Amino acid sequence: MDIKSLTGVIPPMITPFKENGDVDYDAFLLNLEKWNRSDLCGYLVLGSNSETVYLNEREKQKLIELTVTNARKGRFILAGTGSESTRQTIELTNHAGAFGAHAALVLPPYYYISKMTDEVLVTFYTEVADNADIPILIYNVSKFTHIEISAQVIGELSRHPNIIGMKDSSGNVAQLIGYQNVTAPDFNLMTGTASIWYPALKLGVSAGIMALANILPNECIEVRKQFIAGNESAAEELYRRLFPVNTAVTATYGIAGLKYAADLLGFKGGYVRKPMLMLIDNEKRALMQILSEAGVIHF
Amino acid sequence: MDIKSLTGVIPPMITPFKENGDVDYDAFLLNLEKWNRSDLCGYLVLGSNSETVYLNEREKQKLIELTVTNARKGRFILAGTGSESTRQTIELTNHAGAFGAHAALVLPPYYYISKMTDEVLVTFYTEVADNADIPILIYNVSKFTHIEISAQVIGELSRHPNIIGMKDSSGNVAQLIGYQNVTAPDFNLMTGTASIWYPALKLGVSAGIMALANILPNECIEVRKQFIAGNESAAEELYRRLFPVNTAVTATYGIAGLKYAADLLGFKGGYVRKPMLMLIDNEKRALMQILSEAGVIHF
Amino acid sequence: MDIKSLTGVIPPMITPFKENGDVDYDAFLLNLEKWNRSDLCGYLVLGSNSETVYLNEREKQKLIELTVTNARKGRFILAGTGSESTRQTIELTNHAGAFGAHAALVLPPYYYISKMTDEVLVTFYTEVADNADIPILIYNVSKFTHIEISAQVIGELSRHPNIIGMKDSSGNVAQLIGYQNVTAPDFNLMTGTASIWYPALKLGVSAGIMALANILPNECIEVRKQFIAGNESAAEELYRRLFPVNTAVTATYGIAGLKYAADLLGFKGGYVRKPMLMLIDNEKRALMQILSEAGVIHF
Amino acid sequence: MDIKSLTGVIPPMITPFKENGDVDYDAFLLNLEKWNRSDLCGYLVLGSNSETVYLNEREKQKLIELTVTNARKGRFILAGTGSESTRQTIELTNHAGAFGAHAALVLPPYYYISKMTDEVLVTFYTEVADNADIPILIYNVSKFTHIEISAQVIGELSRHPNIIGMKDSSGNVAQLIGYQNVTAPDFNLMTGTASIWYPALKLGVSAGIMALANILPNECIEVRKQFIAGNESAAEELYRRLFPVNTAVTATYGIAGLKYAADLLGFKGGYVRKPMLMLIDNEKRALMQILSEAGVIHF
Repeated sequence: MDIKSLTGVIPPMITPFKENGDVDYDAFLLNLEKWNRSDLCGYLVLGSNSETVYLNEREKQKLIELTVTNARKGRFILAGTGSESTRQTIELTNHAGAFGAHAALVLPPYYYISKMTDEVLVTFYTEVADNADIPILIYNVSKFTHIEISAQVIGELSRHPNIIGMKDSSGNVAQLIGYQNVTAPDFNLMTGTASIWYPALKLGVSAGIMALANILPNECIEVRKQFIAGNESAAEELYRRLFPVNTAVTATYGIAGLKYAADLLGFKGGYVRKPMLMLIDNEKRALMQILSEAGVIHF
Repeated sequence: MDIKSLTGVIPPMITPFKENGDVDYDAFLLNLEKWNRSDLCGYLVLGSNSETVYLNEREKQKLIELTVTNARKGRFILAGTGSESTRQTIELTNHAGAFGAHAALVLPPYYYISKMTDEVLVTFYTEVADNADIPILIYNVSKFTHIEISAQVIGELSRHPNIIGMKDSSGNVAQLIGYQNVTAPDFNLMTGTASIWYPALKLGVSAGIMALANILPNECIEVRKQFIAGNESAAEELYRRLFPVNTAVTATYGIAGLKYAADLLGFKGGYVRKPMLMLIDNEKRALMQILSEAGVIHF
Repeated sequence: MDIKSLTGVIPPMITPFKENGDVDYDAFLLNLEKWNRSDLCGYLVLGSNSETVYLNEREKQKLIELTVTNARKGRFILAGTGSESTRQTIELTNHAGAFGAHAALVLPPYYYISKMTDEVLVTFYTEVADNADIPILIYNVSKFTHIEISAQVIGELSRHPNIIGMKDSSGNVAQLIGYQNVTAPDFNLMTGTASIWYPALKLGVSAGIMALANILPNECIEVRKQFIAGNESAAEELYRRLFPVNTAVTATYGIAGLKYAADLLGFKGGYVRKPMLMLIDNEKRALMQILSEAGVIHF
Repeated sequence: MDIKSLTGVIPPMITPFKENGDVDYDAFLLNLEKWNRSDLCGYLVLGSNSETVYLNEREKQKLIELTVTNARKGRFILAGTGSESTRQTIELTNHAGAFGAHAALVLPPYYYISKMTDEVLVTFYTEVADNADIPILIYNVSKFTHIEISAQVIGELSRHPNIIGMKDSSGNVAQLIGYQNVTAPDFNLMTGTASIWYPALKLGVSAGIMALANILPNECIEVRKQFIAGNESAAEELYRRLFPVNTAVTATYGIAGLKYAADLLGFKGGYVRKPMLMLIDNEKRALMQILSEAGVIHF
């Protein structure tokens, strides 16, 4: 695996919980085993879809270690380590490195949002990268952070030797082009959502970290395989078929929806952790219908 | 101190840092000693102005313990314990109780904002209150959380025997009235900002947790004293004189401004923790000018 | 009437429509007659509650003329004339003056919002005021325009001899204080909502243009009379009783709610103009209940 | 021209003004003549880039008539007729039809935004379409209206026989896919921005109404020609070269930038109408640099 040119599909792994709220590590490992049999290029542990903000430090450490130990050889292990303070982000990043993660995905600080200027973001990421034992990637996800990291900031940071890429979850193709225009060719610009997977491939993006890969890894991979093989219409057709499923397990039903779909599709979704709520029956039926219409489950 | 009827002024205590980024506990204690000499009714440790999101668990514990140990007898000790997950919020709240805090101030969960419905918020706070060893207060601060907790939610939660009040930092007087209309008489509805201190008093709010009380505690207290003594115009005049200072150390210059003003006014502001930036010279001069025009510093 | 010191209550007059969508001028006049019998200090014709954006130029002209002709002597006639272009705003303002309006209430331009900088707003209002035959007032209502006019802009514009005041519909008391701090003493700073009528009076604001005055003019006036007479608790008690009604006929049910309440309270609400929808039965019942609980209707 | 399948590029025509603020119809005609020589498929008169909100009814009528009279034969003439009220939108649409426009582009009502529910939007567009003498298209442009029209609404409206398409200016490719999934095959789904022109073509969108086509019509057309000819990399390369120019004349510098670029590129940009401001020298130089780097002007 060449971290200068990441290609392929990475699931931001869900964290199954038991009914009592404990992490269900066995379920996590069963999912990992199953994902190991798919042609994924790596794993993101402790992403937004992992309910990371609901995990404590021991749980986070254990999930990184389990991932490192049980991932199929050659897979790229990315760990989410973003924290509000520069020093804690560095500390968590280096812990993740020590536990075996290959790189860290770093959220911007956002609590004191009016003070998080471009200057602050550049300084933050630069200091983290300077002090991190492993490479870092930038994580842009304004639906949670309310910050849209500008092309100016990305352009500048992409020159840092220890900042090797970014996950852009905006689903905004024009923004991707804007980032491409200012970043170096070896900067790993990844889409953070399957909602633009095929258009992103067409525009030269070659990797994606996408919630949908938790439950339909082979299909997400197949879009890219068909694309690379020159079968663009097959790639597009599959992408379009998956599109409503992706909308359902992200925008519409969120992580509870993703986990319910995981259960239906042979993975271990398990419980969400409180205060998040499970789907109610109506929502379950609607989601099942969407999965059925996409041809990914059959009754 | 009767927690059924909190009255007076509480500073959300700043956390001074050293240049190397470590917490400066000595400076914190010097501030506390000085605040002890003012007629404050209590302290909030680990509020937004404490840069709490930048602190680790050991630092948080030590700050609570130092506050408990060193606060003047009879003062109400409130600790911020909000966390994204229900279980961690309960755990942190009970730790704070064990360290000696009298009550906990609890932020709503907000990362997965589109899923944080009224139902989720009611369930979250109810479960926390059910399981907390100390009473809790709700913390509404949408400039950081992007959630404005509705009157419906507050009304319902105010009936819980272990939810004794709220800090509303919106600065929105009409919202306070809306909350008053649905909450029980013994619910401690506190303004979370000095920007409406006098109007809030006039409307029957009798306590405030306000950044400004870090640096001008006696003046914040005096507004209420004059008001209670029936000297409304003196109360209003002082409130109006403090108003531009409050705007400067909150909306305009934020915590870095509050800390710089603290240094000018004989407290220990110290450094902010990274990624936050210190004020630059221009900002310092402008802030000094505002303090001077308000008559709180003299050259 | 001294336009240097407007005091009292002004209704932003509703425009009744017939079922076929035509303006019901007779109903408008019946309302006006009734308002004439109340101690209102003036009228706003063509405000937001007038569904002005749904009116054509002939209708606007006729409504101004009817107001001018039929208003009780001595009442201050204010006409909404804001338009996106500087030239059209001047033209509409001067037409309103020619039709007999005493002053114009001017919305900021907001369509090209990202370009509507402080500089543009200052230039816009200055040019309008320079060329207007009648005095103008600034209209700040970000819930419709998405622009919150800054204290800096208001401070600067308040020095213009032909800009005599503003209607601030934010309901934000701290913002009012901010405006007061930078405006001249003879600048008519008016609240644009009854939601803060009593606190605004207490802070020295002496006039209000409020939707609620359409349906409960005497009550809105009475709050101020009691206040002026030194009966602050009577003023506050009445304000608090009206508060839920005001919330219902503005934030919750909007103009359709205001008009339905008008019908219930002996005024002519009539139809809203399409695309606005009338209240449905559930909403009508809930609104009736709120009016009943406030003691303003009885069954 | 088959309105069931619009293909190609349409400029939302700028409106040149004289220094005194009058419409410069001669300049408008010179532009039109020049555009007539390009292979554009039609014209949008009275779009957002036409500063339509700054025009009066006489000016609007004259611009439609000039367009109808002077457009090259066979071009599709689309006129913006959106207004806040249903009745005025119908009236303006039928006037536009009477003046010779082939179809109308209709903004949603947005002033009373909190009441503009999906139900209201469906009813509004349905009534307009029912009563319009010419076909209508929906105009989604949330950066001005603050409303993002949902796929549900578009899906339902696309079944109306007199609603023949939409201009989506969001620049959001995933949203386009969402619209495609619910609309009939003969619904003309057009991108409203050049920022996603090539990706949109790749996803089966075959028409675009784009600001950039005012100043670089041939280049915008060429992207599609190369795409259709199977020269995808040539299409993409040109699209990428134009991308920074498009960002500059829309997001960064707005209409004033578009007009300045028009002047540089041999069109008549002229003045913007007040309150809009012209570019300052620094901005002009920066924009010139961007045009030069894109190879569309040479010094």
